[in-house]
Amino acid sequence: YAPHAGVDELRQAVAGYLSRSRGVSCNAEQVIIVQGTQEAIDLSVRLLVNRGDLCVVEEPHYRGFRRCLLAAGAAIYGVEADGQGLQTSRMRHIRGARLACVTPSHQFPAGGILPLQRRLELLDWAQHHRTMILEDDYDGEFRYRQRPMPSLQSLDTHGTVIYVGTSSKIFFPALRIAWMVVPAALREPLLTLKAMADIWPSTLEQLAFAQLINDGHLERHIHKVRRLLAGKRTALLTAVREHLGNRVSAVGSDAGIHVLLRLHTLQPQQVPELINRCAAQHTGIYAAAPFYLQPPAAAELILGYSGLTEAQIRSGIKRLAVEVAALS
Amino acid sequence: YAPHAGVDELRQAVAGYLSRSRGVSCNAEQVIIVQGTQEAIDLSVRLLVNRGDLCVVEEPHYRGFRRCLLAAGAAIYGVEADGQGLQTSRMRHIRGARLACVTPSHQFPAGGILPLQRRLELLDWAQHHRTMILEDDYDGEFRYRQRPMPSLQSLDTHGTVIYVGTSSKIFFPALRIAWMVVPAALREPLLTLKAMADIWPSTLEQLAFAQLINDGHLERHIHKVRRLLAGKRTALLTAVREHLGNRVSAVGSDAGIHVLLRLHTLQPQQVPELINRCAAQHTGIYAAAPFYLQPPAAAELILGYSGLTEAQIRSGIKRLAVEVAALS
Repeated sequence: YAPHAGVDELRQAVAGYLSRSRGVSCNAEQVIIVQGTQEAIDLSVRLLVNRGDLCVVEEPHYRGFRRCLLAAGAAIYGVEADGQGLQTSRMRHIRGARLACVTPSHQFPAGGILPLQRRLELLDWAQHHRTMILEDDYDGEFRYRQRPMPSLQSLDTHGTVIYVGTSSKIFFPALRIAWMVVPAALREPLLTLKAMADIWPSTLEQLAFAQLINDGHLERHIHKVRRLLAGKRTALLTAVREHLGNRVSAVGSDAGIHVLLRLHTLQPQQVPELINRCAAQHTGIYAAAPFYLQPPAAAELILGYSGLTEAQIRSGIKRLAVEVAALS
Repeated sequence: YAPHAGVDELRQAVAGYLSRSRGVSCNAEQVIIVQGTQEAIDLSVRLLVNRGDLCVVEEPHYRGFRRCLLAAGAAIYGVEADGQGLQTSRMRHIRGARLACVTPSHQFPAGGILPLQRRLELLDWAQHHRTMILEDDYDGEFRYRQRPMPSLQSLDTHGTVIYVGTSSKIFFPALRIAWMVVPAALREPLLTLKAMADIWPSTLEQLAFAQLINDGHLERHIHKVRRLLAGKRTALLTAVREHLGNRVSAVGSDAGIHVLLRLHTLQPQQVPELINRCAAQHTGIYAAAPFYLQPPAAAELILGYSGLTEAQIRSGIKRLAVEVAALS
């Protein structure tokens, strides 16, 4: 039998990793080990959100937020994200929201990295209206240009932020290890709920993961993967420039493992056909539309590049350019 | 990325194991892999139970049922269990219940094994009132006297039963592998909910567990453990007879890994002091009272014996007898 919060070794190791690498200031007491980001969202929403509560998501946003909020019966309000992430200036009039689900490290899926000024504005708004913030740092390990920004969690002095990170982008999604850093007041209620939901995470995987962190393997692995991903990212952006030129904009590429591609020569309703044509040529691309509450004004794709070689990325973009031209 | 229901290999292997060993008739399509029994309960209750719904538990019962039902806002009705488990004859007047949570293989914690006649009566009642049944087979692998009884699930012809089994008593609770066998109509809604709750179980542990079953190790292991447990059970019952005699009744010992001990010479309110006195002598026993909705009429203990040697069991019972005598 093991603690609901996760084994001590792993909570200690995660607290150390987060403070060294992710700009999160916490002690092991605040860390709760969960299966994945989705469980962290589900537990938070089950605890905090009642039927009819107003909740904020970014527009576009991760659908895992929306699913849990809909199940809780929340009234969902989308705030548009631009190239720098959530437009916090549009939030001033929102009062009485219970929870805001945000991705400041790398806005999902539009890719903006939230500037410090907006982070402070968001926290100020949340503290003023007693809104809780769920900060989902799903792939912030992989940054290619600026230095890492302090997490919302580390800027928060009012116990307003639940921070969530995961191993699934660092390693692989079959490994069910993720972590929440929670304000002191929420620790016990969250653990009571976790005891009801699934009791505790797998002890074997937790101990193995703790050792991976303590032996330095995790950070060495991240460093190595970041270099590999930077090469793939460059291959992708170069191929896009070469084959698609100014018919598209590639946005949100400064961090993470995907890029959002805005297609200036197609209508949004042509995207499904484009996807089908590419699929027929063994090229997998995703529409951005399902990640919006309101249908997006532009034709947009999401291109994930972490699982492909640079050669595959180049030939995929070449294929995409052919199909875009055919439909334009 | 893996299926929400669990990997095919494991669902196939579990379906085979359940039909060979647990009297459960199912195909792999009906199997959903979960973290543990608690997750299966939580998913079932979240899906089926709305605020104010009437739900039935056994009295006494596993507290994991009660927790989830309370969180869902259910009205909980307890039906007393006797030496043969749930007293189904007391259920005839209960109408409109949404869900009944039962442990027919080995009533928890009072230990009865539900006779066939009561199983049929329970199913008949449930089908008549359109009540769903959650059949929790948490330790039914370990039976010491009669032949295994057919599961409720195998007797059900109306899609009324959700069957739940777990590896946590067969191996250890740190291994997060359990299984649900669900009626066809509930499969998709349960998987939608599971995708929201934790997406999928650990793939590595699933593949390892599938191989364990397919290579025959699981059933050999159960066979071996059953023999070890039978020895411990005999040591326990012999020591109880010798040291406590007719001052107690040991009930529910025909299956599982615990015994309920009814103390005829103590009042229920003396149990906490008895537990403290035993703890001071390094002997761990548990009160049965927390497993009741209504305070029980008798002083009752739960004695778990799977983790102890026969010598530890004998000296523990000897110590218990000394403390019972001191308080009587």
